[in-house]
Amino acid sequence: MRTLAWVDGAIELIDQTKLPHQVETLRLDTVDGLVAAIQRLSVRGAPALGVAGAYGVALAASKNAPGSPAFDADVTSLRTARPTAVNLARMVDRVAAVATSTEAALEEARSIESEELMASVAMGNLGADLVAELVGDRPVRAMTICNTGGLATVERGTALAVIQTLHERDLLVEALALETRPLLQGARLTTWELQRMGAPHRLLVDSAGPFLLARGAADVVLIGADRVAANGDTANKIGSFSLSLGSRHAGVPFLVVAPESTVDMTTASGAEIEIEDRGADEVVSLGGELIANPGTEGINPAFDVTPVALITALVTDTRVVRFDRGQVL
Amino acid sequence: MRTLAWVDGAIELIDQTKLPHQVETLRLDTVDGLVAAIQRLSVRGAPALGVAGAYGVALAASKNAPGSPAFDADVTSLRTARPTAVNLARMVDRVAAVATSTEAALEEARSIESEELMASVAMGNLGADLVAELVGDRPVRAMTICNTGGLATVERGTALAVIQTLHERDLLVEALALETRPLLQGARLTTWELQRMGAPHRLLVDSAGPFLLARGAADVVLIGADRVAANGDTANKIGSFSLSLGSRHAGVPFLVVAPESTVDMTTASGAEIEIEDRGADEVVSLGGELIANPGTEGINPAFDVTPVALITALVTDTRVVRFDRGQVL
Repeated sequence: MRTLAWVDGAIELIDQTKLPHQVETLRLDTVDGLVAAIQRLSVRGAPALGVAGAYGVALAASKNAPGSPAFDADVTSLRTARPTAVNLARMVDRVAAVATSTEAALEEARSIESEELMASVAMGNLGADLVAELVGDRPVRAMTICNTGGLATVERGTALAVIQTLHERDLLVEALALETRPLLQGARLTTWELQRMGAPHRLLVDSAGPFLLARGAADVVLIGADRVAANGDTANKIGSFSLSLGSRHAGVPFLVVAPESTVDMTTASGAEIEIEDRGADEVVSLGGELIANPGTEGINPAFDVTPVALITALVTDTRVVRFDRGQVL
Repeated sequence: MRTLAWVDGAIELIDQTKLPHQVETLRLDTVDGLVAAIQRLSVRGAPALGVAGAYGVALAASKNAPGSPAFDADVTSLRTARPTAVNLARMVDRVAAVATSTEAALEEARSIESEELMASVAMGNLGADLVAELVGDRPVRAMTICNTGGLATVERGTALAVIQTLHERDLLVEALALETRPLLQGARLTTWELQRMGAPHRLLVDSAGPFLLARGAADVVLIGADRVAANGDTANKIGSFSLSLGSRHAGVPFLVVAPESTVDMTTASGAEIEIEDRGADEVVSLGGELIANPGTEGINPAFDVTPVALITALVTDTRVVRFDRGQVL
């Protein structure tokens, strides 16, 4: 299932804010519309943001001459639509650098899309191999957070690609999906994708993850990444850090699965990663309904940073980096 | 503010499932009605459950002769309405043991209520003194989970009584309240109580707690308890264990605040504590609305167990037990 595509001069994508209740395709034919869709999370997930941004530059080139002030303004608006995922800015820049025409931009964006696709397949295989090596060649129970499947990429995904590959190899007992407050990507999107792939799964609240690990409920934890710093520190959905503490306490391998395009060697460590605060609204209300006492203020870090010391290994599309054995990026 | 009282032959209590949107008082004049109210969490919190159970025995005695099979059936139904909080069974047994008449039962229940009240004041003072000792005599930022205020007790509470006392002493910068999925007691109840006491506060999703501790956002973590085992292991709301891991990682004191009535010397360790699974419904839906893909299964442990090794100290109404210094119960 493709979640995002270039169709007849516009970007079409599944509106992730409507899932799982409605499968609705958005057609975006302006850069402003795409930026708004990115900001309200109709499209999300670091690799998917990269592909969306890449096609966004093609869209910009189809409206204004590359190099013109209007084109440059569109490119800036795209690359800064969200701050944490490195893929967005990187892919926007990559396409902008070769966008001498709409066709040239489109060709680069299509390359990025197909690279992401092949990367998902590769991550799934490398990750499933690593799980077998770490846990033993037996069916496993895998815990995960947020949505890292086809919706977050183009197809298959990152951490969820590993779970899908394990399932295809008959090596998955069940996936344990954290609901992922505040926006419930785990509850809304991951359960939807797991059901579509026919993989057994159960849902839990985020704070139950570390405790269930302590009680032996899972053999491995798999997460995606929004940005991996040069030292291996990893920014990912809020709650990932908690899970890494729980994994360490329980002695369960904690694996980050992300394409090379998510590794940012220009960021030395997690301390340099900007953490997006998405404002109190997402915390004090849910689905438009107030859940807290009226007037309550909130803190809402969308991401956290897991220090490399708590990560067993990073699985990319080309390699496995065993941080637990002292390997470095 | 009293949250529960015996009024003219029945139990009246604030229906906590309606807060913060409506402050509605339930009048319960049958044991079955009280048991149902306990099970749907209209009244919750270990000390409040103890007081509710105590008055429940008086209610039972007013309907059937103490010692009769009908009375005994009511007592059994009350003491097993919920499994994790030790106070419920203990206070039911205590009143049942002296319930030769409705008046005798009522007198014992009233003693329990006033003991809980005095206990809250004592815990607030002992806890605030300990915070000053651990953090220094300066205004502090305190993180907490679930609801441990007057709603969970009779007045003031346990962990929230410490926060209230710090606030009354002008030693509170702000309280950081975890929303406490799945039932959002932190978002719904704790923000309501903090606002009523005029204490500055902000709300966050549960999984942000450990990360914000790592970023230095709080000086102390204060939680209540549903049951403290003889070795100090503590059962409390799901998410407490995560917070204890986060506290340890950040080097922040992690304090359990609970009356002596919550200490259960007949339970040797946390491994013996039964963890209530409240079923998938609370996880896959919210406020009656499905949030997950239809048909999704869930795991829903209502409590977790924090091992004593991760607890700095226990504050009761009569003493402080410094586990970090090797003290034992």
